[in-house]
Amino acid sequence: MTNTNREWLLAARPEGEPDTDSFELRETDVPTPDPGELLVQTRFLSVDPYMRGRMREGESYADPWNVGDALKGGIVGEVVETASDAYDAGDLVTGEGTWGDYATLDADDVAPVDPAVADPEAYLGVLGMPGRTAYFGLLEVGRPKPGDTVVVSGAAGAVGSVVGQIAKRNGCRVVGFAGTDEKTDWLTDGLDFDAAINYKTTDDYRAALDAAAPDGVDVYFDNVGGPITDAVFTRLNLDARVAVCGQIAHYNDEEVPTGPRKLPQLIPVRASVEGLLVGDFATRFGEASEQLGQWVATGDLRHRETVVEGLENAPDAFLGLFSGDNIGKQVVRVSSADGE
Amino acid sequence: MTNTNREWLLAARPEGEPDTDSFELRETDVPTPDPGELLVQTRFLSVDPYMRGRMREGESYADPWNVGDALKGGIVGEVVETASDAYDAGDLVTGEGTWGDYATLDADDVAPVDPAVADPEAYLGVLGMPGRTAYFGLLEVGRPKPGDTVVVSGAAGAVGSVVGQIAKRNGCRVVGFAGTDEKTDWLTDGLDFDAAINYKTTDDYRAALDAAAPDGVDVYFDNVGGPITDAVFTRLNLDARVAVCGQIAHYNDEEVPTGPRKLPQLIPVRASVEGLLVGDFATRFGEASEQLGQWVATGDLRHRETVVEGLENAPDAFLGLFSGDNIGKQVVRVSSADGE
Repeated sequence: MTNTNREWLLAARPEGEPDTDSFELRETDVPTPDPGELLVQTRFLSVDPYMRGRMREGESYADPWNVGDALKGGIVGEVVETASDAYDAGDLVTGEGTWGDYATLDADDVAPVDPAVADPEAYLGVLGMPGRTAYFGLLEVGRPKPGDTVVVSGAAGAVGSVVGQIAKRNGCRVVGFAGTDEKTDWLTDGLDFDAAINYKTTDDYRAALDAAAPDGVDVYFDNVGGPITDAVFTRLNLDARVAVCGQIAHYNDEEVPTGPRKLPQLIPVRASVEGLLVGDFATRFGEASEQLGQWVATGDLRHRETVVEGLENAPDAFLGLFSGDNIGKQVVRVSSADGE
Repeated sequence: MTNTNREWLLAARPEGEPDTDSFELRETDVPTPDPGELLVQTRFLSVDPYMRGRMREGESYADPWNVGDALKGGIVGEVVETASDAYDAGDLVTGEGTWGDYATLDADDVAPVDPAVADPEAYLGVLGMPGRTAYFGLLEVGRPKPGDTVVVSGAAGAVGSVVGQIAKRNGCRVVGFAGTDEKTDWLTDGLDFDAAINYKTTDDYRAALDAAAPDGVDVYFDNVGGPITDAVFTRLNLDARVAVCGQIAHYNDEEVPTGPRKLPQLIPVRASVEGLLVGDFATRFGEASEQLGQWVATGDLRHRETVVEGLENAPDAFLGLFSGDNIGKQVVRVSSADGE
C-alpha cells in the first residue's frame, strides 16, 4: 500500500459517442475511513452501460455525475483498513466505490465476497447487480412459463447471458441476439441457448426470428433497442411480456431517436411492455444472491468476465461497452491478490 | 315490416383513408330466423373505429371482412319474429348484427335492452362494448389510485368519456384531450373533468400537460396515438400505467408509422404499457353491465350519443369517426319505435 491514490473523474460531459476526453485521472491521497467505514483496495471495478446516463445533466433514476466528480460504480476489493467491527483487514467485499485504487465504503453498504463460490470479479457480474437484474427482470417482469419462447437482446452481455440461462431453467426456448460469432457460439454451445442470431451479419431480423423462434415471442428481454427490438415487436405472441432493461443502442443519441411506432402492435396481442430497474427489488436482493450463488457454485449458471487490465484503462473498458467489446461482464482489474 | 331488407357490404378494401366507395348497399330479402334465433328490426347500429381494422386483409383480433360480405357490428333492435323461447316479439335486444334493416341473431348472443335504464342507443355506448372497454381498461389495466392523474386521449368519445368519469369516481385528477371546444367544454362542464385540452388548437402539448397535469401522469388511457401520445409519454410518473385501447390516428396508415422511440422513456420511471381488448374480460361482462347500468340509472355516469339518421348514411357515420365528428358514441338510427 502506497500513500498515493488515483481516481477517475468526469472531465467533461460527452455529446453523442463519448471518448477518452470525458475522463481525467487525478492523483489524490489515499482516503482515511471514518467510523463505520472501510478502506478498500480495489481489485476490480465495474463499467456498465447505464453509466452513460449519469454523464448527462438532469435527473434520472441515478443521480448525474458532476464534472469534476470522481466516477463511481460497483467494485470488489480487499479491506486494508477498517473502522468497523463488521469486517477485518484482508476481507474481500463488494459495494459502490470510486473508480480508483482505493475507496472508502460504509460497512453497512458492502457485502462479503466468497472466493469459494466464484472468482471475485463475478461479484460484479453474475453475482452482482447484473445478475440480480437478470433474475428479477426475467422472473418478475418477463414472467416466463414453461414452453414460452424468450428472446434476449444483448444476450452475450452481463445481464443477457444470465437471463437466457434462467429462462432455460424455466423450460423456455431461448433465442439470443449478439454481435459476433464468438458470442453467438458461446450462447448456443456454452450456455445452451436454442438459437443465437448475429445481428451484425444478419440482414433480415424478422426472417431470422421466424427461423429461430418459429412459435413467436412470449417474452422479450430487451437490453438494446433499435432495429432488433423493432423486429421482435412484430413477432410478439398473445399476452407477450417485454422487459425493457436497457436501450444501449440509444444511450449516445443526443436527439430523441425515432423508429416504428409500437403501440398499435400491442393491441391485437395485448402485450405488456415494462421498464425495469433492479433497485425496485432491493428488499429481495438476498433471495437473488442466495439463488444465483447456489447456481454458480454448482456450475449450473455459467458466466464470463472480460477483464481490461489496469485502472488507467477504465475509460477504454467503458467505451468498449458501446462497441460490444465485452463477452459477459466487462470489468477492470485494478490490483491483484498480491496487492500489485 | 316489409319483405325487403337492405344491408351494407364491403365493396372494396380501402387504401389509406376510406371513402364511400368502400361500401355498397344491397337489397335482400328479410332473413328468416333459424331455431334459436331472433329476427330483429334494427333501431340503431354502431360504428366503431376498430372496424377499420376489419376492412384490411389479414388476421387480427377481429376477423377481416371479406369483400362482398355484409358489414357487422353492435346493434339494438326490436324482436319482430322469434324462434326462441328466450325473447318475445316486441322485446328490445342488443347484439352483433349486420348493418341492415333486419338481422337474425342467436338468442344466446343477445342481451335485453331496458328503456327504463337508458335510451336504447346507450346500449351501444356507455352500456355496450365501449362502456365495458372503459370500465375494464381503466380499472384493470390503468389501475387508478386516489390522487392519481389520469390522462385520456379521445376523451369525448364513447370510451374516453366513460374512462374519465370512472377515474373521477376513483378520486383521480382527470385530463382529457379532444378536438373541438364543444367537446372540451362538455368534458369540463358536463363531465367534471379537471381539465381538457383541444389538441387541434394547442401547439405545445407538453406545455399544455404541464399546466393541466402539474404532478405528471400516473395513468394514460390512449385511444388515439400520434403526437398526443408522444407528449404524454414524456410526462409519465414513476410506475405509470398506459392502457393502449385505440390508435385511431394510425388506423388509416398504409405504412408502419414512425415516431419518437418510447422504450428508453420507460426505464427511468418503470412505466408499463399494455394493449387492451375488452373481449379478454368477457367472463366479467355481467359485473360491468350491472355497475354501469346502476351509474347510468342514477345519473352518476353521463353519456351522449351522436345520431346519424338513416341506414343509407351508415358509411358516412363511420367515416366521420376519423374526423372526430362524434361527441360520445356515434350511432346510426335505422328505424324508430313506430317501425318507420
